[in-house]
Amino acid sequence: MTDGGSWFAEAPEAGFQQAYEVRAELYRGRSPLQEIVVLDTVPFGRALVLDGALQTTERDEYAYHEMLAHVPLFAHPDPRRVLIVGGGDGGLLRRVLEHPVELAVQVEIDQAVVEVSRTYLPSVSAGAFDDPRVRLVIGDGVRYLAETSERFDVILVDSTDPVGPAVALFGGEFFRSAGRALRERGIFVIQSGSPLLQTAQLRSAVDQLRTAFPIVRPYLGMVPAYPGILWSFTAASAGTDPARADPVAIAARMARVGMRTRYYTPDVHGAAFALPAFLARLLEDPRADGQDAPVASVSE
Amino acid sequence: MTDGGSWFAEAPEAGFQQAYEVRAELYRGRSPLQEIVVLDTVPFGRALVLDGALQTTERDEYAYHEMLAHVPLFAHPDPRRVLIVGGGDGGLLRRVLEHPVELAVQVEIDQAVVEVSRTYLPSVSAGAFDDPRVRLVIGDGVRYLAETSERFDVILVDSTDPVGPAVALFGGEFFRSAGRALRERGIFVIQSGSPLLQTAQLRSAVDQLRTAFPIVRPYLGMVPAYPGILWSFTAASAGTDPARADPVAIAARMARVGMRTRYYTPDVHGAAFALPAFLARLLEDPRADGQDAPVASVSE
Repeated sequence: MTDGGSWFAEAPEAGFQQAYEVRAELYRGRSPLQEIVVLDTVPFGRALVLDGALQTTERDEYAYHEMLAHVPLFAHPDPRRVLIVGGGDGGLLRRVLEHPVELAVQVEIDQAVVEVSRTYLPSVSAGAFDDPRVRLVIGDGVRYLAETSERFDVILVDSTDPVGPAVALFGGEFFRSAGRALRERGIFVIQSGSPLLQTAQLRSAVDQLRTAFPIVRPYLGMVPAYPGILWSFTAASAGTDPARADPVAIAARMARVGMRTRYYTPDVHGAAFALPAFLARLLEDPRADGQDAPVASVSE
Repeated sequence: MTDGGSWFAEAPEAGFQQAYEVRAELYRGRSPLQEIVVLDTVPFGRALVLDGALQTTERDEYAYHEMLAHVPLFAHPDPRRVLIVGGGDGGLLRRVLEHPVELAVQVEIDQAVVEVSRTYLPSVSAGAFDDPRVRLVIGDGVRYLAETSERFDVILVDSTDPVGPAVALFGGEFFRSAGRALRERGIFVIQSGSPLLQTAQLRSAVDQLRTAFPIVRPYLGMVPAYPGILWSFTAASAGTDPARADPVAIAARMARVGMRTRYYTPDVHGAAFALPAFLARLLEDPRADGQDAPVASVSE
């Protein structure tokens, strides 16, 4: 797009596109499930790309993984058993293990993603897969949750977008499986896409979550390498409101385990649930048509 | 950049670029001060572009203008006299006038920006320039503030980025002029650029503000058409902490004047001051080197 050099960009959405200058392609291969590429980019360092969609980068992965892990793990009073669906790069697992959990089960569908990530982006997992508290399962997370008799305090879904193989990870049936696999005060969180460019998918995910959980709380962070930068997560529970967390108590828990974060703070926790007016209306008012949103939607 | 159609993009920063599909160019002209272009874009509707830098769009202008106006105006107990420096498109003036102010002085350096905006983007100012409480001055805001004997409750700087003619709007001398022109509990706010792509400028502006005001509070919003989307503002005062505002009291004030916002809410007000950890360190720790930031900086 710009003269000189090579650039990476995902397909535009609503006439909007982000592009990153690329220094080199470090890996390109195909697993039975998808095409896997590793790029060295100027703004974000090394980037993992699956079927053309950027998944994570060395430089900004913490913004995504900290908000997906620490919000539910600090909202929960005593998380001991955690399940991760997806997240093959290991960055989410690493943040879960910063808490005094007893067990972290990770169900990733594509072993090649784990292997390529450990080889080319080792700073993302930072050795997390070698932790004795981890049980890595290569398999289908939807099937795992439908069949398991194990129970968890926190279940996290770190998936690709709701197209192709990941569609089932955004449906009511999967959400009800997750609800059954949670302990009494358990919290379930999904990454729910761009609140600017994927509003229809976000709205649908929130609606589906509401069929499965009495408490559903979308919250926001930002992931500079993702399209639209502003990013949404949605937490759901039958017994804990993830938005109500005492900053003083969180700070004490962080100090106790010596946690040093780069995005998440006790104040960011509560602030993440303060949705801009257009977004609150879109997710709470069934008649909202999206005309209030700051980017024209694809479906308009 | 993408096949078919025409695209608009500003020069990349740190190997990062956003691009918008363009339906048509509606206006192109040159004032004595700058080149003025109006584009019709797919994601944002009509966009005002000055010397190649996008300033505002029909679709997302509210996200920027509401956060620049409503945060200080609701943090102040009784704002009656407001000064705007820049802001020729009128979107900021319009939000100021939604409060029960007595006077809004606007000092814009380029009359052509006001005229082109009123002609091509009338929905942005929505008639604000015709309000009898407005006094529009075409002139240099730096000189105006250095020479005026008037005093204001709120002073807002809605400028272009700190390059070229706007450089003086980010310096300590200008900030001290602003401090002198504020009443006792007055609040001064600038747009302080992208916290992801312009960290050096943001840091410098905050440092300069600290030489002129005892209370300096950076806060965040998002402006999808601006590079990096996440956006910073910095509020400064000698007598009011802009971060401390009671959501219940704000909601009552909003109801009293029948204000309907699309971005700002009483909860968004406080949440905007909760900075991500990397940014809090960058703005508070003189030794921070920016290695914690999620985008590689241009200066690294």
